[in-house]
Parts: sequence; structure tokens; C-alpha cells
Amino acid sequence: MASPEIDALTQILSRLPGLGPRSARRVVLHLLKRRETALGPLVAALQAVEARLVTCGICGNIDTHDPCSVCADPRRDPASLCVVEEVADLWALDGKRLFAGRFHVLGGRLSALEGVRPEDLGIESLVSRVSGGGFREVVLAMNATLEGQTTMHYLADRLAGLDVSVTMLAHGLPVGGELDFMDEGTLAMALRARKPVA
Amino acid sequence: MASPEIDALTQILSRLPGLGPRSARRVVLHLLKRRETALGPLVAALQAVEARLVTCGICGNIDTHDPCSVCADPRRDPASLCVVEEVADLWALDGKRLFAGRFHVLGGRLSALEGVRPEDLGIESLVSRVSGGGFREVVLAMNATLEGQTTMHYLADRLAGLDVSVTMLAHGLPVGGELDFMDEGTLAMALRARKPVA
Ligand SMILES: [Zn+2]
Ligand SMILES: [Zn+2]
Repeated sequence: MASPEIDALTQILSRLPGLGPRSARRVVLHLLKRRETALGPLVAALQAVEARLVTCGICGNIDTHDPCSVCADPRRDPASLCVVEEVADLWALDGKRLFAGRFHVLGGRLSALEGVRPEDLGIESLVSRVSGGGFREVVLAMNATLEGQTTMHYLADRLAGLDVSVTMLAHGLPVGGELDFMDEGTLAMALRARKPVA
Repeated sequence: MASPEIDALTQILSRLPGLGPRSARRVVLHLLKRRETALGPLVAALQAVEARLVTCGICGNIDTHDPCSVCADPRRDPASLCVVEEVADLWALDGKRLFAGRFHVLGGRLSALEGVRPEDLGIESLVSRVSGGGFREVVLAMNATLEGQTTMHYLADRLAGLDVSVTMLAHGLPVGGELDFMDEGTLAMALRARKPVA
């Protein structure tokens, strides 16, 4: 139907998260009809990002500057460090302004299954960063998965002995969570972590 | 949080149809983490389309070639012409291989409210194209809206007298349409167009 170039663009767009063949076609149509106001600006914005994309040498975040916008922000608490598995986790915690300290991105999680070992992650850089001093607290904000928690305990071991308080995220029922909609793992965890009623 | 370049890209993506701030962020993250396999190909595909974008001189379709892929396709019935309001309508009818003839895109519909007059649409080019001969049938595939139907009747008048059969899409209940979910207009139309049971 359409030209090879338009078909290729539609295919590439349909592989983006949240898009499928139908919505990709709608996006292409939108762009074709708005060359000056939509297609042009999109190309320019993508090129600007592509040209400058770097991994932050301090924290492992992906950004267009090194140090990244998070590391370069002077309003952040320099003594508080949040360790996350992926850039997506940094965005989630930071985008909602939930954590106003510094970040450290591991770039994954330990996984025997996938053959991910400590040296494959940003763990040495974390240890040397924390060893350098100046941090009061390190929050280990791993996912509440088996591999996330394995990684969390490994990091806690590696950071033990350094003069810093190491903490982890609380686990349990999510806000609004109804018991009969929760999976077994969450219920077991919430039960295990039960506390006296204040 | 992110750099100005990444924020700008996120904003531009969030204005695309079907995307919002959340899904745009997910797309950006996907692209940042896959510079070689996702970001690069997307930029290249968009540039290829942007560089060649043209409106077809024959039918008004938007494509990367003129004549467009539809007009240049020799397997299509050259004697059958389908007139649509927008490129999106052409894509809908053609993408599902519902119509295998030629197309003509008006670029809108007559609208007193929006001040769209006959000379603002591709109507002269339609009349001269059909006057040129060679067409057996012209299907007026306007939307089943007030403005679409006004446009349809205007076109039927303009084409009257030419040696061609002018037809329109059937109106009525959509396939699977249940009466108590239909709007009043559809019900009225289906009633008005009622036929003897065969
Ligand atoms: Zn950084
Ligand atoms: Zn054409």
C-alpha cells in the first residue's frame, strides 16, 4: 500500500513499547500530515538526543551530559545515595520526586540464570564511590524479585564495614492493595513482615 | 530530572496520537537504552520519510513518491475510483484491501462552520480526472457525518452528466451492532434505509 520508506517507519514504530501495528500507523499518518509541526520537530529532537547520548561516569544514568542532570543538580542531598537496578528505576523514583539525594545505577541485577555476575554490574564503582566518604545513608532500592533481593543482600555485604547506614525499601501490600487480588508472594511477604498494631 | 534535550523529546512524543506523558517516557527510556538497535534506526527511518514526503499529483495521497504507491500500482482496477475525505480514509480502505481500484483524496470536507469551500478541496482535480474518461464507477466514500454527506451530494451534482456511474457507501447498522447500543442517528438512518426482507 504505502511506499517502502513509510512501511519501514511504521514497522520500526510498531516495535516501540506501548505501540502496535495499528497505533504505529496512526502515528505515521499524524506525522505525514504535519511535516513542519510534528515530523520535523520529532526528527530534530531525536537527533539532538542521539548525538549527545552518554552514560554518566559517576552514577551510570543515561543522559545527554556527563555528569548527568541528576549528579550535576546542586540542590540534591549529597549524603544520601539510592542504588537502583536500571535507569528506568531511577526515572520512576526521581520523576515522582520521591528521593531527593543522589543515585547509582547498577545496570541490571545478579542472575545465575542469565549469567550476570558482580563484575558485570556497576558494583565496584558503587563500593569505591561510597568508600570515598561523604555518604550518610545508602538506600538499596532493588526490585522485590528473587534476583533483586539476591543483589540487595550481596550489596549489603559489600558495603558492610563502611561508615554508612545501609537501608532497604519496605515490602508488603501496595497502597490500595486488596487481599484477594494480591499474588501469593506479596501476601506471604506482608504476613512475614507483620508488625504490632500501634 | 532529565536533560533539556531528553525532556524536549519526551514532550514531543507525548503529543503523538495514542501516547501520553507516561508512555512517552517509556518510549524515550527504550530508545536511550538501545541507541544502536532502536534510536538509530528510528532516526534514519524518519529522515528517509521526511526527505521524500510529497503529495501525489494524481490523487492527493501523501507518500514518498509522486505518483504515489497506490497510483503507480498496475494491479489496481484503473476504471474504478474511490473518493475519500482524508489520507487516513484511503489507508483504512486500502490497508484492509477493501477496495482495489484507484483513489482520490479531497483533503477534507465541505464545512460552513469551518469555512471550508469547494475550492479548498481537491474537487476540480477530481472533476477533471473523471472528465478525462476511462472510469466506469466513482464511489463517494465520505464519512457518515452531516458534513461528509453534504460533500457527497455536492460531488454527486458535480459529477452528474459525466459518463460514469456514481455510487455511495451503504449506511445502517454496523456489523455486530446491537440496537440498544446504537446512537439515535444510526437507528434513524437504518430505519429510513429499510428494505424488504428477501
Ligand atoms: Zn549521574
Ligand atoms: Zn496517488
